[in-house]
Amino acid sequence: MHDLTLAANALRLLAIDAVQQANSGHPGMPMGMADIAAVLWARHLRHNPADPAWPDRDRFVLSNGHGSMLLYGLLHLSGYDLSMDELRRFRQLHSQTPGHPEFGITPGVETSTGPLGQGLANAVGMALAEQLLAAEFNTPEHTVISHRTFAFVGDGCLMEGLSHEACSLAGTWGLGKLVVIYDDNGISIDGDVKGWFGDDTPARFEAYGWRVIRHVDGHNLAAIDAALQAATQDCGRPTLICARTVIGQGAPNKAGGHDVHGAPLGAAEVAAVRAALHWPHPPFEVPDAARAPLDARSRGAAAQAAWQARFDAFRQAQPERAAELQRRLQGELPPGFEAQCAAQLAAVDQRAETIASRKASQNSLTALAGALPELLGGSADLAPSNLTQWKGCRSVVRAAEGGNYLHYGVREFAMVAIQTGLTLHGGVRPFAGTFLMFSEYARNAIRMAALMRINPIYVFTHDSIGLGEDGPTHQPVEQTATLRLVPNLDVWRPGDAVETEVAWQTAVRHRRTPTALILSRQNLPHQRRDATTRAAIEKGGYVLVQERTDRPLQLVLIATGSELDLAVQAQAQLAALGVNTRVVSMPSCFMFEQQEAAWRRAVLPPGVPRVAVEAGVTAGWRQYVGLEGAVVGIDTFGESAPAGDLARHFGMTVAAVVDAAQRCVQSAAGQVR
Amino acid sequence: MHDLTLAANALRLLAIDAVQQANSGHPGMPMGMADIAAVLWARHLRHNPADPAWPDRDRFVLSNGHGSMLLYGLLHLSGYDLSMDELRRFRQLHSQTPGHPEFGITPGVETSTGPLGQGLANAVGMALAEQLLAAEFNTPEHTVISHRTFAFVGDGCLMEGLSHEACSLAGTWGLGKLVVIYDDNGISIDGDVKGWFGDDTPARFEAYGWRVIRHVDGHNLAAIDAALQAATQDCGRPTLICARTVIGQGAPNKAGGHDVHGAPLGAAEVAAVRAALHWPHPPFEVPDAARAPLDARSRGAAAQAAWQARFDAFRQAQPERAAELQRRLQGELPPGFEAQCAAQLAAVDQRAETIASRKASQNSLTALAGALPELLGGSADLAPSNLTQWKGCRSVVRAAEGGNYLHYGVREFAMVAIQTGLTLHGGVRPFAGTFLMFSEYARNAIRMAALMRINPIYVFTHDSIGLGEDGPTHQPVEQTATLRLVPNLDVWRPGDAVETEVAWQTAVRHRRTPTALILSRQNLPHQRRDATTRAAIEKGGYVLVQERTDRPLQLVLIATGSELDLAVQAQAQLAALGVNTRVVSMPSCFMFEQQEAAWRRAVLPPGVPRVAVEAGVTAGWRQYVGLEGAVVGIDTFGESAPAGDLARHFGMTVAAVVDAAQRCVQSAAGQVR
Repeated sequence: MHDLTLAANALRLLAIDAVQQANSGHPGMPMGMADIAAVLWARHLRHNPADPAWPDRDRFVLSNGHGSMLLYGLLHLSGYDLSMDELRRFRQLHSQTPGHPEFGITPGVETSTGPLGQGLANAVGMALAEQLLAAEFNTPEHTVISHRTFAFVGDGCLMEGLSHEACSLAGTWGLGKLVVIYDDNGISIDGDVKGWFGDDTPARFEAYGWRVIRHVDGHNLAAIDAALQAATQDCGRPTLICARTVIGQGAPNKAGGHDVHGAPLGAAEVAAVRAALHWPHPPFEVPDAARAPLDARSRGAAAQAAWQARFDAFRQAQPERAAELQRRLQGELPPGFEAQCAAQLAAVDQRAETIASRKASQNSLTALAGALPELLGGSADLAPSNLTQWKGCRSVVRAAEGGNYLHYGVREFAMVAIQTGLTLHGGVRPFAGTFLMFSEYARNAIRMAALMRINPIYVFTHDSIGLGEDGPTHQPVEQTATLRLVPNLDVWRPGDAVETEVAWQTAVRHRRTPTALILSRQNLPHQRRDATTRAAIEKGGYVLVQERTDRPLQLVLIATGSELDLAVQAQAQLAALGVNTRVVSMPSCFMFEQQEAAWRRAVLPPGVPRVAVEAGVTAGWRQYVGLEGAVVGIDTFGESAPAGDLARHFGMTVAAVVDAAQRCVQSAAGQVR
Repeated sequence: MHDLTLAANALRLLAIDAVQQANSGHPGMPMGMADIAAVLWARHLRHNPADPAWPDRDRFVLSNGHGSMLLYGLLHLSGYDLSMDELRRFRQLHSQTPGHPEFGITPGVETSTGPLGQGLANAVGMALAEQLLAAEFNTPEHTVISHRTFAFVGDGCLMEGLSHEACSLAGTWGLGKLVVIYDDNGISIDGDVKGWFGDDTPARFEAYGWRVIRHVDGHNLAAIDAALQAATQDCGRPTLICARTVIGQGAPNKAGGHDVHGAPLGAAEVAAVRAALHWPHPPFEVPDAARAPLDARSRGAAAQAAWQARFDAFRQAQPERAAELQRRLQGELPPGFEAQCAAQLAAVDQRAETIASRKASQNSLTALAGALPELLGGSADLAPSNLTQWKGCRSVVRAAEGGNYLHYGVREFAMVAIQTGLTLHGGVRPFAGTFLMFSEYARNAIRMAALMRINPIYVFTHDSIGLGEDGPTHQPVEQTATLRLVPNLDVWRPGDAVETEVAWQTAVRHRRTPTALILSRQNLPHQRRDATTRAAIEKGGYVLVQERTDRPLQLVLIATGSELDLAVQAQAQLAALGVNTRVVSMPSCFMFEQQEAAWRRAVLPPGVPRVAVEAGVTAGWRQYVGLEGAVVGIDTFGESAPAGDLARHFGMTVAAVVDAAQRCVQSAAGQVR
């Protein structure tokens, strides 16, 4: 094990030298987990640095992402395309070594971590994807999907409520190939965790149905190796290894205290580490003997080659299944998909149904599920309300038995973070629902998916006061507006079944953008459109009702979702009153903003007064209506009452829209120009 | 126990009849928990219906708030000022019986519940407040604070991650007077919970250090009574009673299934319940025999009178302590507080320090803590970063030993929801911090506090790309803007130490509004102000730098927080370029919007072009700058790099502000008017 000690110390030195050079970062965790990392990566992790996208690689997730330099050191020493120069540029602009690991920036980084608990939930999602794909594609003769997921977690991850949600599900699902290593160092930022973290963590995880390996000395290489050996014997349950470590292990004066967590050690202590570890090498120099144990290039190539041979045999035996698996793993849509979409959109239009957009969503996803077997649905215990199930979907109970519908229970945050892990793993295309209000429980995980530029789909129903009697605790007022402010999140609030169909199609087409579908509880009338108008929906904002072209346009009404029909009715009344009005439907501001300026100007001609209508907070619409326009919306919390009463109470009525429109037109006419 | 059975059946009938009448609601939980509720309220809960604000009453929290009719039935039958007519108006506009219990609407409702898990965390906060006040005010001779907190929770509450966070803390703090009754009915909306909730819940709670009373038959009145007897013997640990119940108990055909959860039973099944329970009475009629056991008026009055006698004796012995306790319980600021604020503000101004607003915040709260012993600080394991501790604060370890600083651990959601419980309990004034980014973990609890119109204070630091190297996972871009969209939440982003002091003072003065303080990691220069300007800060938006008054005003720069100084510097450069510019500081849009129109017009004169500057998403500022103005901000995720590099990279520079301002002025001049 001597070489492994060298490798572990190399990881320690790389971390503290990079932090020192950046004058910023977290040395304590990399030093504390270096021994565990060295044993895991040298002896257990099956990966190929030459191909970080190898589908059957083991996944490694650093949930305690502040210890990023540990991961960068591992990737560099293993042979990934991550140069020493990049390590020197730790935490510098546009380096491949940002402060926390970021998916898409660094080869070998499986997910972006830092917000605590989420990496753990991502890992649960990855392990779940592996089991579901294995159940679907492996045969008695051919094993083409078989890999593990390893995650490092700290005290912080396990204090977070998300760890409860994700690990309870992992136990219920029986994710036998998930191995979590708990860095039990007894220290968090406020100091010794005894004062705020009194859990019996092993007992807690046993209560979730996990196998727990207790009392592992995280600085004893043989003990670590034995624990990992045991953990990788599949018993149909996920495994938690509780490894007792010393934060900042190797720092003679600072180890074991919280000062070593998030600040450079300082030149003196760095020198003291060098002395204590007998490490004569200058910063960013690693001797070959320390590199050798972690160098995974040749064994990784061999492992992948062996898998490729298995896959080739599978392809030989079952070419269609192999092609299907490959298509899914590459995240490609099936041939003929666009034609199916066009046919489906025409069919929805022709049905001209007055239905809730949540119901329209169910119809759309039912049609999509036929074309896309990779769809993996779910809901946070609201399947009958979100309408996320479809005929023929099969509930996952034990993951090893497969399925394509997930009962997440009342666990919104885990649902979204697990979807992130499923998406990152590849081969499945997850969507899942809850009430729009409870998207707030999952808020940061939605943001993380947007930041990672991946494409899960969220089905958020019961989207306004239209849900009625459940009252203000359940009535979204500001939620749609706040979701629209998340960069790279496509928020659709469709106004009828036709727009809902387009929203689903767009969501499925996105490769680098997650989508939130904002859907009504209540029925929405069908809007009539010609083929050109129907084709314009995907642009996010388009003219639904054209004004009279023989007179000047006087007003543009902009509306979304359940308020679209209010605008359409108001337009008719305004026309009767002699106000020449256009209705713009704006189901997706995100897509509208991506259109060329010419399109946006054509839809919203400059200089024409505008009134926006949406049953929610008004401030966001000022970017379309300006200071001179008006917004018909709701800037207070809701109330508990039947939906019709609420619409009147909050002024979400045709009369209110007509009134606002007339005042806006009069005010514009009265302005000196 | 016969009368108790009658009382329980009265609760059942009230619930199903009200749901039937509203044609909406949740009969299953009230029917399932009616027996437990009857025993608890008739035999154990110490409360006085005539005075729902009696400070030493037991608290009762219905965390599974969808079962609201159970609570309304209990309140009505106990003798609270909640008439049968109000029960008839269940879920109707402006009734006292909204769909979910709402604090402030219904006498006796201690907290608004519905979003699962939060009531449980509120209850932890209430139980904590009781212990801390008892530790501070009780003496060997005088016990003036001594009451229990009871909470009902369902499967949903216990699946939520929040339950992990809150119950772990309750165990660590040793909240011996907290009794939680788990409605273990095995059913959630998706069906039998076995498929998604495999936890060994008793073992889990024992792992948190709780006393667990297992296997209680929730329909056996004697068994329930015995369990509550045992639970109310204080053992220094919180207690979980696991009560096995049948959802919809009493409904002959629907009991035990998930259909009974959230929809009216239907006339036929309601009739069947009447037959099965031998209940001949029409809807909303309860016979005296069924009312008697729950009627708490005379025993409640006696209990409060006994307490009052104890309190009077305390007042006799220690008049100042008694007055202080009374002041705190009434939520009043101490005499002389305003004078201290004025002196403190002048002192901060005079020091003219260039410091981070998080550091300024620590200085402010240190000064406030001297005046307000009710301040109860805390942080989600970021005390050294949020700077939420002050000299002389004392950490709470075991709640019974008292203290005024809470180490919440890495548990943001519980922190905020526990603060809600602390605030609702009264007698303490909580504030607590985390990084602004992780406010997202607590998002819905912040909203719930705003909805309840209570006044906790949140300290959210590291508020922009200015935090530097930690990168986009930690850099808020949209968070400040999204918080501003929550109704009744006062969001302050102060630009220097003086504004930070005003922000704190305003936050403390609020009685019905929670405040989020958005603070910088990095230093912010002091801005010079005369006394009038200083006094204007509390209006939320004010003129910090006046334009030349001998020429027409050409441009208004609006800025907040760390960008305020960019605006001030840009103003000077623009002046040199001949552009007559004003700088408006807008630390609180919430307070600004509450000012009279004359103030707002004076600060932002109509018709003058405006440019807003804030290191975050731009859309929200359109409500101030309109379509013609400009916003200097950031509409993408951040990057990992030193803060100075990021400011240049994202164009958060004086040069960028000057540039935007000039273009805006030129464009305005070019317009035909």
